Amino acid sequence: MDRLEVHHLPDLEALPFAEALARAGELAQAHILAATCGAQDVIGDAMRYAVDGGKGLRAFFVIESARLFGIDRADSAAAAAAIEALHAYSLIHDDLPCMDNDDLRRGKPTVHRKWNDAVAVLAGDALQALAFQLVTQTACTAERRLHLTATLGGAAGVHGMVGGQAMDIAAESASTPLTLDEIIRLQAKKTGALISWSCTAGAVMAGEEPHRLRIYGECLGLAFQIWDDVLDVEGDAAQVGKAVGKDANAGKATFVSLLGLDAAKDRARNLVEEACAALDTYGDKAECLRDAARFVISRQY
Amino acid sequence: MDRLEVHHLPDLEALPFAEALARAGELAQAHILAATCGAQDVIGDAMRYAVDGGKGLRAFFVIESARLFGIDRADSAAAAAAIEALHAYSLIHDDLPCMDNDDLRRGKPTVHRKWNDAVAVLAGDALQALAFQLVTQTACTAERRLHLTATLGGAAGVHGMVGGQAMDIAAESASTPLTLDEIIRLQAKKTGALISWSCTAGAVMAGEEPHRLRIYGECLGLAFQIWDDVLDVEGDAAQVGKAVGKDANAGKATFVSLLGLDAAKDRARNLVEEACAALDTYGDKAECLRDAARFVISRQY
Repeated sequence: MDRLEVHHLPDLEALPFAEALARAGELAQAHILAATCGAQDVIGDAMRYAVDGGKGLRAFFVIESARLFGIDRADSAAAAAAIEALHAYSLIHDDLPCMDNDDLRRGKPTVHRKWNDAVAVLAGDALQALAFQLVTQTACTAERRLHLTATLGGAAGVHGMVGGQAMDIAAESASTPLTLDEIIRLQAKKTGALISWSCTAGAVMAGEEPHRLRIYGECLGLAFQIWDDVLDVEGDAAQVGKAVGKDANAGKATFVSLLGLDAAKDRARNLVEEACAALDTYGDKAECLRDAARFVISRQY
Repeated sequence: MDRLEVHHLPDLEALPFAEALARAGELAQAHILAATCGAQDVIGDAMRYAVDGGKGLRAFFVIESARLFGIDRADSAAAAAAIEALHAYSLIHDDLPCMDNDDLRRGKPTVHRKWNDAVAVLAGDALQALAFQLVTQTACTAERRLHLTATLGGAAGVHGMVGGQAMDIAAESASTPLTLDEIIRLQAKKTGALISWSCTAGAVMAGEEPHRLRIYGECLGLAFQIWDDVLDVEGDAAQVGKAVGKDANAGKATFVSLLGLDAAKDRARNLVEEACAALDTYGDKAECLRDAARFVISRQY
């Protein structure tokens, strides 16, 4: 990968949301490709395959939250790559037969379907290790890099993402469906923790107070998950890139089953408004992040 | 756990090897227990179960290498806990049915046998995240903590432990058994990388040159693996705490199958001598580490 060229782009320019998202995804992938160079053949291939085709939304949150504080895209790219590597690992493991048992992800066979379960376990494990290696390379002071690393560990672990996924699996064999409060708590861990980390990363890099960005990330994370449930009901498998109707058919409690379709959409829209309002203090500079929040509840995939 | 009490022990005293090993294991476990407090029920239980009963050898290497430079046990305990958490995760995942498919570990049912595959995947994932969280808490400068974290990521990932495990699995379906050089390279990644990290951690914490400790760790890591192959042939399952004779029965190339039993033992003994000699510069202070090297080739488990 030509990382030098990436460094010489005019990084502080504001871009429309779609371009900023694409650029963030490319930057993160370039870092991951470089870091897996010379890796054990099959596992390296599986790692790159799992990262390829991701929307790059979490990388975007890292990079754009950093831009609010005047931080160049190249300087937050390692943290952006870290969160994409971590996200990709979580998808590989979640798709395993012993977990959600999915055959399709981003319109392609899941890693364990393309290779096998052992490759999927190991590629996920290696992507998690890579995430922590990458986040230490973020361009800020050692203290702030350590803070990013420690909080990433917390967000990824048993008190965060893994804890949420475990709650989700436990709920499947529970005798009663989850309540709305329980689903909100579950999702705050399962998907919310990493999204919050991404949205606050820029403030941490800059040594600024991350409170407003945390509200933005929490509202947006919940809206994102509600919209996933909406897409599970209304979406088209080809566009969504994975099986739809699974949760509804399994009789699983979702935001849609608990609130109804229209109320779920309203709730998501209100959350996005709240997310946008949290960024008022940043003025026009935050417009790209506001566009991202609106994207979350308009996406078809 | 009473962590305060641990902090007030006279930590700079030299202990005989067996006591130092036990103390290191206890310190690491106390940190992991504290960190998993309030964790999601099943996953938290599985994490603690997997860590419980470990020899604590890697924690010992961290703590004793730090003591060479006058660093108190309490100050290296977080790094010691990190490497034990990482080691425990790797054992859980290696034991999975899609990997080595083992039912017994440390004389107890493996995590996926006691619970199920999903719990084993998630508990392993959470222990890896915890390892990176813990290592950032080591008591040294931010720059050195970052260095410990980044190198732990490298040692754990596709260029280290995971890469070695993938080579091992690939070898099982290969048409020709591995050569001696290939096994040495495989083991340097699969088990050597974490052992080397542990043995050099103290020098990194102290900001000292880790070269001599790296030689010690590399020689000892290889001796350790050769001795594992010896135990697979000569050991008793009850003492070893896991199935024995597996590799020999599977017709897998091992140090014993390639060198013969006696020559393999000689090789391990020579490596241990080399490991001990590498520590000459540290004089009597390194005696406990030398005892550990001798333990590696005398252990029955």
